[in-house]
Amino acid sequence: MTTRVGIYGYGNLGRGIECAVNSSNDMELVAVFTRRDPSTLKIASKNVAVVNVKDVASYQDKIDVMIICGGSATDLPEQTPNLAKLFNVIDSFDTHAKIPEHFANVDKVAKANGHIALISAGWDPGMFSLNRLYANAILPNGKDYTFWGKGVSQGHSDAIRRIKGVADAKQYTCPVQSALDAVRSGSNPELTTRQKHTRLCYVVLEEGADAKAVEAEIKNMPNYFADYDTTVNFISQEELNRDHSGIPHGGFVIRSGSTGANNEHKHIIEYSLKLDSNPEFTASVIVAYTRAIARLHKEGAVGCKTVFDIAPAYLSPLSGDELRATML
Amino acid sequence: MTTRVGIYGYGNLGRGIECAVNSSNDMELVAVFTRRDPSTLKIASKNVAVVNVKDVASYQDKIDVMIICGGSATDLPEQTPNLAKLFNVIDSFDTHAKIPEHFANVDKVAKANGHIALISAGWDPGMFSLNRLYANAILPNGKDYTFWGKGVSQGHSDAIRRIKGVADAKQYTCPVQSALDAVRSGSNPELTTRQKHTRLCYVVLEEGADAKAVEAEIKNMPNYFADYDTTVNFISQEELNRDHSGIPHGGFVIRSGSTGANNEHKHIIEYSLKLDSNPEFTASVIVAYTRAIARLHKEGAVGCKTVFDIAPAYLSPLSGDELRATML
Repeated sequence: MTTRVGIYGYGNLGRGIECAVNSSNDMELVAVFTRRDPSTLKIASKNVAVVNVKDVASYQDKIDVMIICGGSATDLPEQTPNLAKLFNVIDSFDTHAKIPEHFANVDKVAKANGHIALISAGWDPGMFSLNRLYANAILPNGKDYTFWGKGVSQGHSDAIRRIKGVADAKQYTCPVQSALDAVRSGSNPELTTRQKHTRLCYVVLEEGADAKAVEAEIKNMPNYFADYDTTVNFISQEELNRDHSGIPHGGFVIRSGSTGANNEHKHIIEYSLKLDSNPEFTASVIVAYTRAIARLHKEGAVGCKTVFDIAPAYLSPLSGDELRATML
Repeated sequence: MTTRVGIYGYGNLGRGIECAVNSSNDMELVAVFTRRDPSTLKIASKNVAVVNVKDVASYQDKIDVMIICGGSATDLPEQTPNLAKLFNVIDSFDTHAKIPEHFANVDKVAKANGHIALISAGWDPGMFSLNRLYANAILPNGKDYTFWGKGVSQGHSDAIRRIKGVADAKQYTCPVQSALDAVRSGSNPELTTRQKHTRLCYVVLEEGADAKAVEAEIKNMPNYFADYDTTVNFISQEELNRDHSGIPHGGFVIRSGSTGANNEHKHIIEYSLKLDSNPEFTASVIVAYTRAIARLHKEGAVGCKTVFDIAPAYLSPLSGDELRATML
C-alpha cells in the first residue's frame, strides 16, 4: 500500500518531511501547499506539484494524509481543525498546556467528517511522551525526569534577537551533567530549574550596541533566562554563521523507580536522543505516524489520536510476521 | 475496572508478579497455581488461594488474566496454548528464534476459544523489542545495536555449575565500554561478538577440584564462552552468597541513523535499563501488559498479540484525558 502525502507549509519542518517521505518506499509526495506564490517556491523534489493553499480542496481525493507543518502558536490551532474537514491530517502541535483543547477541536471536526487525525507527533511531545507513559506504567512507584539538550532553542534564540542592539543570536539549552548523574544513581533528587539546565548564548551585536546592557537584559529576562545560569558570548556574524548554523537538539527521559516487598530494588529506565537536525528528526517521527494513521483509516478509524493511541506495529512497513521474526 | 489475576508458577518471576500486582490499585490477585502440594507453599500475600495446577479449570470464571510464569525451554510451549483454552493469558516466552512458532500455536487456541493472549512480555523480548521497532520505523536508514549487562546470565551460570569440580557459580555479562562509545559516536562500527561483551565468572570450587582445569573448561566452552574474553575468579561460598546473591541486569538498545538529502545529519536513539532485579522488572512489564489485554478483551479482541500490537495508552491506569494532560 502506497500512502499519498501532502505537505502543508514548506519551512524547515516541511523540507524535513519531504526528505523523509522520499526515503520511504511506501510513501508518495503528491503536492506541497504554500501561502506564497507557487511560482516563487522551488522544492527539492521533481514532478511534485506546488500549489497555493487556497486550492487545497481540489486535492481532496488525491491525498491520503495531509502533513501540516505550521507553527504551534497561531498556525496549527486554525489549520489542523480546518484541514481535518477535507483530509486525514497529522501535526506536531507542541504547546503542551494547550494539547487538551487542540485535541478536542480536532477530534470534533475529524469525527464529523469521517477523518482520522494525529496531533503532537515529534519527539517532545512525541517519543519523549511515549517513554514517560511506558516507564510510568511499568514502574508506578517512581519519579520522572526530562532533560533537554544540548540543543538550539528557537524560542529563546528569537527572544534574544528581539533585544535592542542584537543583530543575530543562537541559544543552546544544556543539561547539567551532575544533575543527570544524580538522577542515574537512583537517588531521586529534587532538582530546581537552575540545577537541571544551563543556557548558553552566542550573540552578534549591532554596531555601537552596549554589550554590558545586552548581556544584563538577556540574563534578567523573566521566564526565558532569569531562572537559569546563563552564559553570553559575543561573536561576529561570520563566526555565528560558521559555527552555529545547525539545528541540533536532543535530551533524556529518565524514570527512576523501585520494586520489591520493601521497595528494595531500584531500576533506571532511560531514553535519550542526540540529533544533528531537530526538524529532520521530528519529520521522521511524523512520517512514521503518517503511515500508521493511513493504515488505521483503511481499517475504519476516525477522530483525533495521539502517539498514545497507536499500536507500534502500525509505524513499520514490515508485516506482523516479519516484525515478530526480526525485532521481537 | 479491577483486573482479577492468577499466577501460574511461583518461582522468582511469580513472586515478582505477586509484588507488582499488589502495588497496582486496579489489580487483584485471586490465586497462585503450583505443581507442588499447595499446603507446602507459603506465599507473601494474605487471603489469596494457593491451588494445585490440576484444579485450574475451576477458576475459569474467577480470573480475567492468567499470568504464566514457567520457563521458556519446556514449560511455556505447553502451558500457554493449554491455558489459553480456559483463560486470557500472558507469558514472557524469550526464546527469540521460536517466537513465530509459539505465536502460531497460542493464536490458534486463543481464537478458537474467544480469548486474548500476549506472549513474550518483559524487557528482551519486550521493551527492547519495542525500542528496536520504534527506532527502525523512525530512522529507516541506520543500524541497530543491542548490548546486555552488566547483569547475571542464568543460562551461563548454570553452564558453569554443570562442570565437574564446581560447587556454585555466578556469571555476569558485561558490555564493552569502548564499543558502546563507538556506537554512540555515530560511526556505525561493525562489531564482533568478542568486541561487544565480556564474561565475568565467580566460581566456588568443590574440595580438591583442579582450578586450572575448571578455568580452561569454562573459557573454551563452545557457544557459551569460547567467543568471548572471559575472566574467572575463584571465591568462597560465603563470598558468593554475600556479594553475588542479587539478580541485576540491564542493557542498551541503540539505533544510529541519518537523514537529509545526502544523509548528512546523524541521529542516535538510545534506550537503556539498569535493573537491580531482573525478575521483578520483568514482572512489572508483564503486569502493565496484563492491564492492557484485560481492557482489550472487554473491547472484544481475541487471538495472540505481542507488545507490537498494543497501543501504549492501554498500559496505563490513567484515562486518555489524564494522559494527554500530564504526559504528552
